[in-house]
Amino acid sequence: MRTVYFDNAATTQIRDEVIDRMTEVMKINFGNPSSTHNYGRQSKSIIESCRKSVALHFNVSASEIVFTSGGTEADNLVLRSAVRDLGVEEIITTKIEHHAILHTIDELEKEFPILVKYVNLESDGHIDYSHLEQLLDSEKKKLVSLMHVNNEIGNKLDISRVASLCKQNNALFHSDTVQSVGHYQLDLEAIPIDFLAASAHKFHGPKGVGFAFVRKNSGIKGSIFGGAQERGYRAGTEAIHNIVGLDEALKLSYENLNTERSYILGIKDYFITQLREVLPDVVFNGSCSSPENSTYTLINVCLPIVPEKAAMLQFQLDLKGIACSKGSACQSGSSQNSHVLAEILNEANLQKPSVRFSFSTFNTKAEVDYTIGVLKEFV
Amino acid sequence: MRTVYFDNAATTQIRDEVIDRMTEVMKINFGNPSSTHNYGRQSKSIIESCRKSVALHFNVSASEIVFTSGGTEADNLVLRSAVRDLGVEEIITTKIEHHAILHTIDELEKEFPILVKYVNLESDGHIDYSHLEQLLDSEKKKLVSLMHVNNEIGNKLDISRVASLCKQNNALFHSDTVQSVGHYQLDLEAIPIDFLAASAHKFHGPKGVGFAFVRKNSGIKGSIFGGAQERGYRAGTEAIHNIVGLDEALKLSYENLNTERSYILGIKDYFITQLREVLPDVVFNGSCSSPENSTYTLINVCLPIVPEKAAMLQFQLDLKGIACSKGSACQSGSSQNSHVLAEILNEANLQKPSVRFSFSTFNTKAEVDYTIGVLKEFV
Repeated sequence: MRTVYFDNAATTQIRDEVIDRMTEVMKINFGNPSSTHNYGRQSKSIIESCRKSVALHFNVSASEIVFTSGGTEADNLVLRSAVRDLGVEEIITTKIEHHAILHTIDELEKEFPILVKYVNLESDGHIDYSHLEQLLDSEKKKLVSLMHVNNEIGNKLDISRVASLCKQNNALFHSDTVQSVGHYQLDLEAIPIDFLAASAHKFHGPKGVGFAFVRKNSGIKGSIFGGAQERGYRAGTEAIHNIVGLDEALKLSYENLNTERSYILGIKDYFITQLREVLPDVVFNGSCSSPENSTYTLINVCLPIVPEKAAMLQFQLDLKGIACSKGSACQSGSSQNSHVLAEILNEANLQKPSVRFSFSTFNTKAEVDYTIGVLKEFV
Repeated sequence: MRTVYFDNAATTQIRDEVIDRMTEVMKINFGNPSSTHNYGRQSKSIIESCRKSVALHFNVSASEIVFTSGGTEADNLVLRSAVRDLGVEEIITTKIEHHAILHTIDELEKEFPILVKYVNLESDGHIDYSHLEQLLDSEKKKLVSLMHVNNEIGNKLDISRVASLCKQNNALFHSDTVQSVGHYQLDLEAIPIDFLAASAHKFHGPKGVGFAFVRKNSGIKGSIFGGAQERGYRAGTEAIHNIVGLDEALKLSYENLNTERSYILGIKDYFITQLREVLPDVVFNGSCSSPENSTYTLINVCLPIVPEKAAMLQFQLDLKGIACSKGSACQSGSSQNSHVLAEILNEANLQKPSVRFSFSTFNTKAEVDYTIGVLKEFV
């Protein structure tokens, strides 16, 4: 059966070069980085060299990169410590953040006396910047947590603008950049952001590894306790092979960024054009059809399908070997409506099926043709 | 240069079969286990099949196995949730537990109104069981946390006895079994233990993955929040390749358990005999020379070396390509004395260098001969 993988916002295929480097490290460099003997020093040196090379992509110091078991852990680390150790009293966020943010905040609300405020959204899902400014006008100790690229609808935040607003208003700023790291350059010397979270498996790296950027002297502390790994931010023997995989994947992503971005954008534009042709009534959720305000890696479309047939759509796409996502990246199994779409779609469109197609450099226009054919036939 | 890896309690060489299976999964099964399409279902099915096979080794249900990023995270998960969600008021432990236990308890003491009590130790580092019984005689909600095999001195706890005592006294029982899983069979249907923590890289699996056993209906909740992975115990996209590596490594460990135990015990016994011959004044710390009360995988020896030369010992062993550990598994880099040895050695022996040599099936008696030769020459 033909298979088309259009679910790259959920996870990506690991690049061969990444697997090769990981395999080599697993074979040779098994020493515990905390050991002082030769085996240990070699492992330690590999990790520190990865940390340096990761830091360079963002124009920050190696000591500001904390390797974690993934983006979710990085989000948890920052949010929890900001409240527990930095005395944050108010968290400003939106209702369309990833669950790694929203559910962590829910939990923190139970444990700590914090106030959570949600920035209003425009009809296309972008934040209302003037409302954000209003919310920032408070004497309390504040943390703003806004994602750079929305994982479901692809909306891009003006991260520099938010960072400046936060700085002006004496608020800390964390961004879940899981969907943008490896796809966009972020110069963190220029952007006055305090924290960010990233995950390797979103840019052709392995699952189970990510990192937090933690600005120097932020006062953030660890949330997994034990050994002194990651300078106390994160106890537990380092997964060297995974860290090497992250490093290699990030390096390749940024080395090939311009070429791959053009290529992927070509796929996306072609998909949009073809889809409009066969289904003129298609709705592009959020601002995913806008090249400026949306990531080049995905579209989220509300399809003009009658309710009786809607339930069969996902089944039919799967049957035809097309992998895509209903709802969020990490929740395509859920039969519930997406919490993101629930915030931005009108009642009529919420009743119709929405599907996210997300792209990578491994996709082709022929796959788009095939998918459009299947959709056309189904509708 | 000849290299001898005698630091298997710090971490182990990954078996080739494990690397092969991991590599295959990374190449083929990159789908997100939370996705409902074919790629996702395949990944999900692999993880659930690993969970079943891991559970079988311990005679428990698959639903009682929670995959984590390692032993440290598993320890943190259990301890934190026991205090936060189960209302534990007293933790009973010892001063020679791994830092993943001790530092997590330190942190919990800051955050919650808990009382921590330390079981007295015998001179050989074993717990004073009658003191444990005294401590258990309290009306408070209690959690006992005692490791099965001590990572530094190899002492084995009578885990069944402690589990029964806890059950009789209505206390929860968690054991850090990081040094024993893969090296000892544990039938958790027979042992009334509530929780345990394990780590793959201690039994020839990959780093960055472990699991917690969480007894059904324990009430334990997650400590990393976000998606609904691991049934809510642990948010974050699952590291399929690592979970597969853990499963394969555990399977091979238990398949070869008897043969490898005899072989490794042979190495250990040979090391003890040879060492006694060349250094009759050597002291075997804890009860590491006792086959019944100690793991077959390590010795921890206090060497009769004058203080002037002691500082050079570690350097000399490293120079000769011998990897072993001063102090704890995960802290051989530390120049401080081990917190474990500080509890059990007398003042005179604390001044002498202690070294842990830990063995695996990949070691040979020839390596012992070489090491003994180096030690003899040095002393």
